Amino acid sequence: MSTGATTAVTLTPEQLLEHWLGHRRLTRRVIEAFPEDQLFTYSIGGMRTFAQLVMELLAAGAPLLRDMVQGESTELKQLEITSKDELLRRWDESMTEIRDYWQQLPAGRLQEPFTAFGMYTAPAYSLILYAIDNEVHHRGQGYVYLRALGIEPPAFWER
Amino acid sequence: MSTGATTAVTLTPEQLLEHWLGHRRLTRRVIEAFPEDQLFTYSIGGMRTFAQLVMELLAAGAPLLRDMVQGESTELKQLEITSKDELLRRWDESMTEIRDYWQQLPAGRLQEPFTAFGMYTAPAYSLILYAIDNEVHHRGQGYVYLRALGIEPPAFWER
Repeated sequence: MSTGATTAVTLTPEQLLEHWLGHRRLTRRVIEAFPEDQLFTYSIGGMRTFAQLVMELLAAGAPLLRDMVQGESTELKQLEITSKDELLRRWDESMTEIRDYWQQLPAGRLQEPFTAFGMYTAPAYSLILYAIDNEVHHRGQGYVYLRALGIEPPAFWER
Repeated sequence: MSTGATTAVTLTPEQLLEHWLGHRRLTRRVIEAFPEDQLFTYSIGGMRTFAQLVMELLAAGAPLLRDMVQGESTELKQLEITSKDELLRRWDESMTEIRDYWQQLPAGRLQEPFTAFGMYTAPAYSLILYAIDNEVHHRGQGYVYLRALGIEPPAFWER
């Protein structure tokens, strides 16, 4: 028995895309669950608000993939979004962008090194996993904010 | 340009193993960062303590992989761990188990369906991603607990 690293498929690029989009759909439900004022004002222990965390996810998700497709490394942008509607609209846009750019990712690119935002060099697949992990990490923090506000968060297993 | 799903490597099984172990190392540092009493008593919004969350991660991580290797679906266990030392010892054990069982995972198994804990049927790779995501999700909640306690959590990017 062996993992047969050179031949066995762990998951296909399409399966990784669907995995990411499943997380984006869940994160959207978490954004929706916040009352608009708390989304932009509530925080625990001096952390950022959930809106600020979502703006980081918007800045570091689809733009990373776009840069990989275009073969350039742009600067990480600071977003300024001030309403829940606009946050959701940008979130939906990010999902369309992720889907579109993914189709343009050249075969084999995921195993090649890339420099994200001019700062972090690593194999492309690990940068994408990092972006997904960062979303799961910050969304988990959003779950605590919601619980502290007495709001039931969406089910973690629903994607 | 195409993602070449049938030929392009997203990540190898070894890379996914290393990704998981990197998360386990970070989660270990988060457990370590908790004062022993708060680890077993502190919570926000009626959520579980971080020790309880870690016990879930112990029950649902390495045992899932063991079941995949042994081709059986055991019941999800409820762990009862009452000290930080024991929690860390079990955590280290889980990492050894993950490493060992991974080497015994037959090639191609990750793309086959599996039933986790007699309850959830899905391709094996997605059950493993779920276990990792669940760890990142709950660890992110541990970060909020630490911040609320005035403790600086370990750097998210260090694995």
